[in-house]
Amino acid sequence: MMRDLSRHPELLAINHATVRRRCDLPTLVGLCQRRGIRAIATWRDLLGEGGAPAAARLLRQAGLQVTGHCRAGLFAASGPAERAAILAENRRAIDEAAELGAQSLCVIAGGLPGGSRDLAAAHAEVHDGLGAMLEHARKAGVRLGLEPLHPMYAADRACVNTMRHANDLCDALGDGIGILVDVYHVWWDPHLAPEIARAGAVGRILGFHVCDWLVPTRDFLTDRGMMGDGVIDIPRIRGMVEAAGYGGFVEVEIFSAEDWWKRDPAEVLDTCMRRYASAC
Amino acid sequence: MMRDLSRHPELLAINHATVRRRCDLPTLVGLCQRRGIRAIATWRDLLGEGGAPAAARLLRQAGLQVTGHCRAGLFAASGPAERAAILAENRRAIDEAAELGAQSLCVIAGGLPGGSRDLAAAHAEVHDGLGAMLEHARKAGVRLGLEPLHPMYAADRACVNTMRHANDLCDALGDGIGILVDVYHVWWDPHLAPEIARAGAVGRILGFHVCDWLVPTRDFLTDRGMMGDGVIDIPRIRGMVEAAGYGGFVEVEIFSAEDWWKRDPAEVLDTCMRRYASAC
Repeated sequence: MMRDLSRHPELLAINHATVRRRCDLPTLVGLCQRRGIRAIATWRDLLGEGGAPAAARLLRQAGLQVTGHCRAGLFAASGPAERAAILAENRRAIDEAAELGAQSLCVIAGGLPGGSRDLAAAHAEVHDGLGAMLEHARKAGVRLGLEPLHPMYAADRACVNTMRHANDLCDALGDGIGILVDVYHVWWDPHLAPEIARAGAVGRILGFHVCDWLVPTRDFLTDRGMMGDGVIDIPRIRGMVEAAGYGGFVEVEIFSAEDWWKRDPAEVLDTCMRRYASAC
Repeated sequence: MMRDLSRHPELLAINHATVRRRCDLPTLVGLCQRRGIRAIATWRDLLGEGGAPAAARLLRQAGLQVTGHCRAGLFAASGPAERAAILAENRRAIDEAAELGAQSLCVIAGGLPGGSRDLAAAHAEVHDGLGAMLEHARKAGVRLGLEPLHPMYAADRACVNTMRHANDLCDALGDGIGILVDVYHVWWDPHLAPEIARAGAVGRILGFHVCDWLVPTRDFLTDRGMMGDGVIDIPRIRGMVEAAGYGGFVEVEIFSAEDWWKRDPAEVLDTCMRRYASAC
């Protein structure tokens, strides 16, 4: 039995990326408070001058939960020095996520290192990089939320592109890592249902992100749609994750340079609330 | 042991789409003859005024083989009338492929019917549409070459996006249908090797297409690269199909509105020949 979102406004979360262009963190917090929105996802580059400590205080005072902190991973390294720098950066992201009390740290794989065509090596690098991150994450009490991205990002952003691959990695890596399911990245997959069930069976689904796939899509990164404006059957996928035991937030994350990022953030949030209730 | 393409120029095939903007079929035939290129893939909209009979005569006289005839399928139908029209169109494409003596008729799935979000229904429509085509194709002695397209085309072009899905469909449909492996569409798939082996084990690989994935890619459809200019490890994937028993042509198919389609077709073919020998 799926949850009726129109009767559960408290399950809505807003990812800061959805209003990143015109809204800093204090403004977003105020907009959420006035609407009864109870959770947000934070971004490392949007924490503001006080960094994670100040952001954590602000969010705590406002009574806002942090679903995910975005983001880390990006393991494409051209050599040992770059690999060490990436690992250090990932440790800092873990510490921020701990400070913020985030439910998970959002991790994306990274693509191929510059000049490389070796996809198998990139996959191995991701496995090893996640393993190294996990040592620090477990000590810090932070769960890693691996987010498979759409295959169109395999070269330059993330070479983990399916729930199956993410499940395989989590199986190999053990405790402390789970999966963020974003409908934009996985909706096309004919084997989505069994892989979501597989993830849910071990309590591995750490987040559920929504937006929509527009037809036509005009930009690879920043032409994502508001829920209901595209072709994704969001309720069907939500049904899958809930049937698999997921009971957490429904987080709106929209990259939309030419549309939603240009609008008044208050209007964007109001639309998110309506579509959350009607189209998710 | 992989074939050494630099010693086997006779295995090169040129898909007419690679030079579609500035080159009609007679011109392409002449350019191929002067270079010793022995096979092309034809397009329905590029056969010229005499249609398939005239094109077949031209190609026979020139001693050119037809790898694939492009293309059919596109099963997204909004109702019975449209479904019947699509089936009739697909029958005509089969008859053309028979007339041309094509090794296969290239079939893509089509996306979601206008206004639909029902991916499962679209998948069922593809299964049933292929089944209906196969009755006619078997009588005509034409093999259907199902080409899984990149997942970024799932909504508006093809909702069969992986080798696994294509293999599943072929298993369900029986004789007369195989798969065209295009590196552009499948290179990102972490389960590519086992699915290519699965296809090869039953002699199902009917064609092998090459181009390259550019970083960045600026357009969803027409920003494909010349082999060697992108990130795909083409020899690795060719090794997979050859290890699986494929011994046919290596067909160059490049959609490139802003680069290769603007160039002199003779220069394009000369480049294809060089890169075929050095980067595939």
